[in-house]
Amino acid sequence: MTPSMTTLDPNSPVLADIETPALVVDGTLLAANIERMAASARRAGMALRPHAKTHKSPDIARRQLRAGAVGIACATLREAEDMVAAGITDLLITSPVVGADKVRRVVELHRRSAVMLTVDHPLQVDDISAALGANDMPLALLVDVDVGQARTGVTGAAECLALARRIQAAPRLRFAGLQGYAGHVQHIVAAQERAQAAEGAGTLLRACADCLSAEGLAAAVISGSGTGSSGFDLGGRCYTELQVGSYVFMDADYARLRERDGAPLPYESALFVLATVVSTNRAGQVTVDAGTKALAVNGPPPHRLIGIADGGSYRFAGDEHGTITLAPSAPAPTLGSRLLIGATHCDPTVNLHSGYHVATGDGALAYWPIVGRYRSTPP
Amino acid sequence: MTPSMTTLDPNSPVLADIETPALVVDGTLLAANIERMAASARRAGMALRPHAKTHKSPDIARRQLRAGAVGIACATLREAEDMVAAGITDLLITSPVVGADKVRRVVELHRRSAVMLTVDHPLQVDDISAALGANDMPLALLVDVDVGQARTGVTGAAECLALARRIQAAPRLRFAGLQGYAGHVQHIVAAQERAQAAEGAGTLLRACADCLSAEGLAAAVISGSGTGSSGFDLGGRCYTELQVGSYVFMDADYARLRERDGAPLPYESALFVLATVVSTNRAGQVTVDAGTKALAVNGPPPHRLIGIADGGSYRFAGDEHGTITLAPSAPAPTLGSRLLIGATHCDPTVNLHSGYHVATGDGALAYWPIVGRYRSTPP
Repeated sequence: MTPSMTTLDPNSPVLADIETPALVVDGTLLAANIERMAASARRAGMALRPHAKTHKSPDIARRQLRAGAVGIACATLREAEDMVAAGITDLLITSPVVGADKVRRVVELHRRSAVMLTVDHPLQVDDISAALGANDMPLALLVDVDVGQARTGVTGAAECLALARRIQAAPRLRFAGLQGYAGHVQHIVAAQERAQAAEGAGTLLRACADCLSAEGLAAAVISGSGTGSSGFDLGGRCYTELQVGSYVFMDADYARLRERDGAPLPYESALFVLATVVSTNRAGQVTVDAGTKALAVNGPPPHRLIGIADGGSYRFAGDEHGTITLAPSAPAPTLGSRLLIGATHCDPTVNLHSGYHVATGDGALAYWPIVGRYRSTPP
Repeated sequence: MTPSMTTLDPNSPVLADIETPALVVDGTLLAANIERMAASARRAGMALRPHAKTHKSPDIARRQLRAGAVGIACATLREAEDMVAAGITDLLITSPVVGADKVRRVVELHRRSAVMLTVDHPLQVDDISAALGANDMPLALLVDVDVGQARTGVTGAAECLALARRIQAAPRLRFAGLQGYAGHVQHIVAAQERAQAAEGAGTLLRACADCLSAEGLAAAVISGSGTGSSGFDLGGRCYTELQVGSYVFMDADYARLRERDGAPLPYESALFVLATVVSTNRAGQVTVDAGTKALAVNGPPPHRLIGIADGGSYRFAGDEHGTITLAPSAPAPTLGSRLLIGATHCDPTVNLHSGYHVATGDGALAYWPIVGRYRSTPP
């Protein structure tokens, strides 16, 4: 039985030498999350392609692959390049890659490692085909379908068919299937409404696949879903593979869905920011060295504080600070003591840091670098 | 006469080879902002200590020093270390430095370059004094005073005096003066109310200084203010030096204050994110490759779009994307075309990137690295 709450102690000797603010992962809960999602996919007979945009970590990707994932999803070319550089293979880039320089780099990546792309426009197909050489292996493309998020993707079955045919007809390209990310579904609070919206997205994808199939184009891969709808999508017949990211750390917003739904999202919050108390001059309050440059603001306010007696309430106090209002008559933590603040929105929190300190209950501590952050260098 | 609006063209050949999303600075407007603040301080006979937390750029710090700044403020030890590594001297770290490892590193920094610290607790004084060696030059400390923000700082004149005396009595330390950052004042919308609040903060600092002076302790430095209150603080007699950061790029929120006040904040928005149109399948809308990992969300929504006919309206669409609703009957930008999105909250936007592409009207393009971001490495 895996513990459902972290047992990490922010003031234990294990974490004492870490410079704050810093990302700390409960390695035991992380491993349990990875295994649970893998087991769910196995049971459903569905392929799993975890999204690396959440963790940006080759070390976590490697563990997801070991647990049975067929490959890894990346949001950007940079993420994919950095994953390949760290030895991760079988990647899907889930956003359209646009521009001559990026198309050239995608082809270079394809020559080093199996990579699959998504496209939603004929020009992307033409550009990628033109950039490939006569000796290149065929590059597999998924047609990105807009299943309701209105962000990227073709907007109907006719457009989907036209693009799939163009891929099939283009030299050195291979039509591999469809992608549809139902981003608009993931955070719907009411379980039944979320289930219906998820089914609507999946059904739309499946209808596109049927339309293509009638024309002799087989969508071997139908990739989509997300942590919020995964409980429903695992039970359906729309997808061949699940793109899920947040489950590894579990966002507070998804944890809230779980509390309402019960079972469908059995993942535990595993990501924290270790912070130091840097000011103690005000009664009933302390200030810590973790603010909006250490914890993402586009989620619920941080509310899990480990190392503060009787809870306490965190409030952002600028880029580098947060203030914690202590519970009445709770003992004030001393200057220099530390606490763990639960990250509530994990993807953008991870993006603020350069690596993870991964702690397990047995006192081991590992450091895993974060890769794939923006680095637009001199042209 | 410097132009008050950028003349940069996102689709000019100068910017064509920059990987998107990327930070782009209008170098002409930046230079004008730096010069205007420096001139204002000169006229007021006040020292200027620009805050590097906004830009995290040794190149910009160097230009601020050349324009007459007495030194640079840093929010964190990392920022200060990286600035010194890049040759910037005369630094003030504006947040209390807590913990044995950081105190050790501060002393190392002090041995390489002039650095001044802020403290708000006797333990910090004792720790820093103990870490200095017999051969070290005296290290200058400012007492941080809480002028109403309730974040860091001593909370009254008596505490201020006690801490200043402790510094004066400690071996190898030098009491240099006071710091009070009126963070609670900067964004008050009504000009008169902001002026009153700014005066209240400054008066409190000056009262502490008078109290110390009566006891024979001279506060040679009284450091504080911010871009939002700088117009008032420059005319007052509370501060000896101004800490101002955002004026170099000008936050949208401050620009809004200027629109209401008229003259007091004569700085121009100089920071943009260059983005590429990556999806064009929906009528009246395009999708670009800049979302919440490229533009800070804790400010007004991005609203300045350069390169889109008749404006258009930006909306965040996830970590890597934004969608732009086009003005009715406006021509849709083509796939692969680019636009410049005005950054609305500059400090946290800068923190998402690794460098600036600095363009001036004459077609020159420079690359300036961003330093001092969190990098908690293996202990």
